[in-house]
Amino acid sequence: MEFERNNWFQLAFNFKSSVILNIKTQVFLSMVMAFLITLLYKHGYSGFSQPILAGLIPGIILGLLLVFRTNTAYERFWEGWQIAGMTIFTGRNLSRQMWMTIPDRTLADSQEKAAYLRLVTAFFMAMKQHLRRARVDEQLKSVLSPEQCLELQYVTNMPLKVTQWIGGYLTKQYSQKQIDSIQFAALNRLLDQLVECLSRCERILAAPMPKAYSIHLRHLLILYCLALPFQMVKDLQWWTIPVVGGVAFALFGIEAIGLEIENPFGYDANDIPLDRLCQKLDSDIEDLIAAGTKQDSLETSVNPFSAQDM
Amino acid sequence: MEFERNNWFQLAFNFKSSVILNIKTQVFLSMVMAFLITLLYKHGYSGFSQPILAGLIPGIILGLLLVFRTNTAYERFWEGWQIAGMTIFTGRNLSRQMWMTIPDRTLADSQEKAAYLRLVTAFFMAMKQHLRRARVDEQLKSVLSPEQCLELQYVTNMPLKVTQWIGGYLTKQYSQKQIDSIQFAALNRLLDQLVECLSRCERILAAPMPKAYSIHLRHLLILYCLALPFQMVKDLQWWTIPVVGGVAFALFGIEAIGLEIENPFGYDANDIPLDRLCQKLDSDIEDLIAAGTKQDSLETSVNPFSAQDM
Amino acid sequence: MEFERNNWFQLAFNFKSSVILNIKTQVFLSMVMAFLITLLYKHGYSGFSQPILAGLIPGIILGLLLVFRTNTAYERFWEGWQIAGMTIFTGRNLSRQMWMTIPDRTLADSQEKAAYLRLVTAFFMAMKQHLRRARVDEQLKSVLSPEQCLELQYVTNMPLKVTQWIGGYLTKQYSQKQIDSIQFAALNRLLDQLVECLSRCERILAAPMPKAYSIHLRHLLILYCLALPFQMVKDLQWWTIPVVGGVAFALFGIEAIGLEIENPFGYDANDIPLDRLCQKLDSDIEDLIAAGTKQDSLETSVNPFSAQDM
Amino acid sequence: MEFERNNWFQLAFNFKSSVILNIKTQVFLSMVMAFLITLLYKHGYSGFSQPILAGLIPGIILGLLLVFRTNTAYERFWEGWQIAGMTIFTGRNLSRQMWMTIPDRTLADSQEKAAYLRLVTAFFMAMKQHLRRARVDEQLKSVLSPEQCLELQYVTNMPLKVTQWIGGYLTKQYSQKQIDSIQFAALNRLLDQLVECLSRCERILAAPMPKAYSIHLRHLLILYCLALPFQMVKDLQWWTIPVVGGVAFALFGIEAIGLEIENPFGYDANDIPLDRLCQKLDSDIEDLIAAGTKQDSLETSVNPFSAQDM
Amino acid sequence: MEFERNNWFQLAFNFKSSVILNIKTQVFLSMVMAFLITLLYKHGYSGFSQPILAGLIPGIILGLLLVFRTNTAYERFWEGWQIAGMTIFTGRNLSRQMWMTIPDRTLADSQEKAAYLRLVTAFFMAMKQHLRRARVDEQLKSVLSPEQCLELQYVTNMPLKVTQWIGGYLTKQYSQKQIDSIQFAALNRLLDQLVECLSRCERILAAPMPKAYSIHLRHLLILYCLALPFQMVKDLQWWTIPVVGGVAFALFGIEAIGLEIENPFGYDANDIPLDRLCQKLDSDIEDLIAAGTKQDSLETSVNPFSAQDM
Repeated sequence: MEFERNNWFQLAFNFKSSVILNIKTQVFLSMVMAFLITLLYKHGYSGFSQPILAGLIPGIILGLLLVFRTNTAYERFWEGWQIAGMTIFTGRNLSRQMWMTIPDRTLADSQEKAAYLRLVTAFFMAMKQHLRRARVDEQLKSVLSPEQCLELQYVTNMPLKVTQWIGGYLTKQYSQKQIDSIQFAALNRLLDQLVECLSRCERILAAPMPKAYSIHLRHLLILYCLALPFQMVKDLQWWTIPVVGGVAFALFGIEAIGLEIENPFGYDANDIPLDRLCQKLDSDIEDLIAAGTKQDSLETSVNPFSAQDM
Repeated sequence: MEFERNNWFQLAFNFKSSVILNIKTQVFLSMVMAFLITLLYKHGYSGFSQPILAGLIPGIILGLLLVFRTNTAYERFWEGWQIAGMTIFTGRNLSRQMWMTIPDRTLADSQEKAAYLRLVTAFFMAMKQHLRRARVDEQLKSVLSPEQCLELQYVTNMPLKVTQWIGGYLTKQYSQKQIDSIQFAALNRLLDQLVECLSRCERILAAPMPKAYSIHLRHLLILYCLALPFQMVKDLQWWTIPVVGGVAFALFGIEAIGLEIENPFGYDANDIPLDRLCQKLDSDIEDLIAAGTKQDSLETSVNPFSAQDM
Repeated sequence: MEFERNNWFQLAFNFKSSVILNIKTQVFLSMVMAFLITLLYKHGYSGFSQPILAGLIPGIILGLLLVFRTNTAYERFWEGWQIAGMTIFTGRNLSRQMWMTIPDRTLADSQEKAAYLRLVTAFFMAMKQHLRRARVDEQLKSVLSPEQCLELQYVTNMPLKVTQWIGGYLTKQYSQKQIDSIQFAALNRLLDQLVECLSRCERILAAPMPKAYSIHLRHLLILYCLALPFQMVKDLQWWTIPVVGGVAFALFGIEAIGLEIENPFGYDANDIPLDRLCQKLDSDIEDLIAAGTKQDSLETSVNPFSAQDM
Repeated sequence: MEFERNNWFQLAFNFKSSVILNIKTQVFLSMVMAFLITLLYKHGYSGFSQPILAGLIPGIILGLLLVFRTNTAYERFWEGWQIAGMTIFTGRNLSRQMWMTIPDRTLADSQEKAAYLRLVTAFFMAMKQHLRRARVDEQLKSVLSPEQCLELQYVTNMPLKVTQWIGGYLTKQYSQKQIDSIQFAALNRLLDQLVECLSRCERILAAPMPKAYSIHLRHLLILYCLALPFQMVKDLQWWTIPVVGGVAFALFGIEAIGLEIENPFGYDANDIPLDRLCQKLDSDIEDLIAAGTKQDSLETSVNPFSAQDM
Repeated sequence: MEFERNNWFQLAFNFKSSVILNIKTQVFLSMVMAFLITLLYKHGYSGFSQPILAGLIPGIILGLLLVFRTNTAYERFWEGWQIAGMTIFTGRNLSRQMWMTIPDRTLADSQEKAAYLRLVTAFFMAMKQHLRRARVDEQLKSVLSPEQCLELQYVTNMPLKVTQWIGGYLTKQYSQKQIDSIQFAALNRLLDQLVECLSRCERILAAPMPKAYSIHLRHLLILYCLALPFQMVKDLQWWTIPVVGGVAFALFGIEAIGLEIENPFGYDANDIPLDRLCQKLDSDIEDLIAAGTKQDSLETSVNPFSAQDM
């Protein structure tokens, strides 16, 4: 990849996506504390200079805990992306196999099939809304019939309902002998994978960092920042205050990033762009439907080799 | 995700979920030791000041071991959540496929099928009780018949028994030619996955941290805390006692968190909320059953597209 | 989980499961070396005090290598447990599916089927013995016929032989049209998984830590312990000897734990309790067979819902 | 493996593949800063010597973050390779199974089949171009018919289109009863895997490092490099400038490598050689086609054992 | 596992498997450099003593990079073992299922089947040779017919050719209705797994550590070793030379181990013993064939339970 030379400094000073605003309280309080200790030291309380306090919370232990915290938060972020990706490829496979396997003898058949292919997109959109604890939105309305929208208003788990609709359609095709038992099983397996995607996302939302852990980390961060001015006041005098602020910025910032990315299904700059991914799946499925409707051109494209090419 | 500004300090001072109470003995003993050494030093035994002892247990090694310990405990915690999530999606898939695949010609058929769908929930509830070494509880009684409750009293592995009941029902449907060989295989594969969930949870319970490892870590922690007052007494005088207490709090706290989360199937604040997850699966399956009984409204929802929509 | 308050100190002083005895030679030699250097220093060879030698093997590098070593050993330990768990759930699934799928029209059929279900347990027991490089033992004899015991004496890979017996039985059922092609495939897939469990365990046994790695780690450990007394002798005088002993205990102990747990299939306190796990699978399968023989009571338990419950 | 003795130093001084050029701005600015501070210090502003600033950004925290960054970038690089490998083996399996399963009764059948086997290669080539945001190239044209090339010009997702062509061909074979339902399902499953490969690659491209994280790391790097000259100026005088340059080179270099490898689908020296891998799959499939056309020689090679060999 | 008390020191001094010889140049050059600096310092150039240079390459950063390097190399080594293990269990399963599923009515059938079972071993042997960029060897000749050996001489990918032979045999059995569609699919899936093993091994060979990474690590190692004598010369005088040698040995040694194990398919002491593993699979398959030929004794062993045992 081209190294983005121009952007390096631009990104470094992109304060909007940074966590500076999230940690202003903690940094401010650390600096107040540093100010007080420096003030007292300046007025002759030399007992406030205690460099040995550096050993209170060993830097290595704090560092390792912070990185462990970042790491686990990142794993959740990354698993969120993996599941989003899995939803897309499962949706693509399910729609392709439905399109290829279920025969459409009449125009009504084709339209019904297209409507159910769109339910695959609807599943992803409903999942997105479900994970954000939101209800049916415009994007979702555009792929559903009014009756379906109405029904979704009253269910607790919208995407799960959508899988049941798709399942019902497949069952109907099977009981009408449009598809055989093997195809029914294969399509059901893909539907199962969609339910897996949904349930894994719900798990990421439901499973917090163990609370005991978050609390202990905060205790250690607070103790560490409290001990800092005592170590530095003798050497740095009034400069203690900005330096403590810098350290607090570094440390609380790492913790704040963990908080920021550990729930990746939200709306802000660091989250998974679920709206865009839904549109992508939507356009893939619309392409598939479109290719099918201009059936004649498809025929030639499906079998595009004429004998003289060989 | 919105950064939870208000809660940051609230959580930091939520002592109920913290591990402070778990480690009070170790912290207290460390401070007693620090007190004794400071006392002796103050009475003129200057040989008790040995800053070089900082090298006894290198901080980096202790830190890495502690984090390794936290890490492996967290992995168990996280795998517990993964399996709980897998139980839910397998339960959803099994119930949906049973509902869609097994035909119900009479009302009695429907009722029998519903009863067996509830056994899927019962499996999860029985697994929860089994992992907590508890017996049939009220939640479980609500989805089982009295005869089943009675039978579960006498088996060693309750959830495994439930899978055998479900398996027996599937076999009966197959031998009565209600489902064909392929569907039987597909349903059995989902049942196999439930057994996998159960067995993996049992493994997490059965597999401890290697004992040699826990013991060695404790030896190093004790040596480290014993060496601390010798390093600090000269600089900190009586302040040695709270500072040693702080270090002991930091270190033993990390170990205690490991202990707290390495068995995630219990009842306390940091464990997986299995009761809530069971209710979730229960409500999903009840929704499925309810959707099936108002068959007429389902018919319209399964096929909700009228020609003029297209 | 309840924090085991009482046990914390008990376990800390449980020397039997600790690695203290395994590393006594290394610790002793380190202390002899420390004694010699202190002796020479005391007799005026002040050149033996070289604090700068602390830089010889940077603590961070040694620490990271030791933890990497512990980590990889722990992964083997943990994978061993995972495979043991997989063997159990595959065994449960294979036995349940065999029991449910293969019809038993006569008592002889039932007895033959029960005998082959017991071969699933026998597989696990044979695998245990195979991994320990032992032969047929009493536990294994209890689930095999004398002829089978005899035959196992002469094969190199006992558990693989058992899978061939089970495979032979399945093939016979298939060729006699007791099970159809799909069921045969499903049962064979579970049998394949048992072979996978076996082969993965064999791999854990066969794949060592890369030798170059173990050797280099030992070289660094030796260099580090040799350099220690030079650093400390000036400050600690005769106390150098116990302190060097303490450091040697900490470091060699970590390496010894790695050695202890990297082969988890043995007989000692830190290994996987394979005997107990075999009994567990055995009792699960015996329960299954017992439930089948009291067929009449099973009939009621399989279909336990009476109309008035609904 | 033979240790590459000769190459060790060659590679160490292979500046072309190194990241030196990527970070020249950052290193230069650090040295300018160091120059200014040394200049001021030399003119008597001794307040510019502040060794205590070493504590501003603890080295351990910076180090752990940098390595975490390298690590996650490397995981993306490695996952990219895994998917490329998976594309190859899925392509090999799909082409082998198509070749073996689909009967070719006439020469036209064989030619059509060969053309569709080449579409498997075309999928990989189209995926390569798609990931590089490029269009149909010469390599791709060589395995496609002109009509197909034309059609690919107008689709947003070229490789997905190719899977639809293959799927259409399989459906045609199935509806003409050339392959049965089971074979159709098996081939579709392999096609699903190709779509999985594609979607996972797209995910790697779409999922960035969380921005908040990259920004925070850069802030810490800048703070660290700003603090450096204050710490060193007293001891090193004018030597401060090259030493600060060296440190900046080490640190920014690690970050630059992360940037370099986190998107592995590009054109430069450190990326996956997708062109070469495409050719490999191409030659494997051409070999398969060639082996089929000299059918007679294949017959003998497929059944090469004469009775007297045994 | 018994702790190998006797071997601890033996292995520590097993220089043959160590990497000492691989890094002699680097260690020697470091010592020459140390010699020059000490010489100049001794002649009065006291400016050569610069302890502050310890900050040039922070030890923690170098350490973390070295361990990251070891880690990724070890993962390749370990994945190599995993694939070797997977090849074995897939080979065992494929051969068992072929043996059980494909009927042999005549002696010629049996001999043909045995010959194709041996091709499964041949696949592993051919893969071994292919990964080592070697051609047909004696081991491979022993399981192939002369015609096959000849044909393998002219193909680029020997093991892939072998899978095509096996696939051809399976297709013939299927088209002659010896096996049905389900069995054909199951056997093909196992064959697919063999191709997966092959392709994953090829990927390990093809995917290097990112070059930029290896180069940067070497630059840092060289800078670190160059800075060392400046830091130590004042304290250690002439002892600087062996101490610098020791550090160079520790650091370059870790890098050399990474190089040594990152390609695990070679011939030396630290590589996977592929020859031995091939023999193991060979003997497993020969046992299977042997058990089949003494058909009568097998019959009794397959059905070894007489009624009175029960």
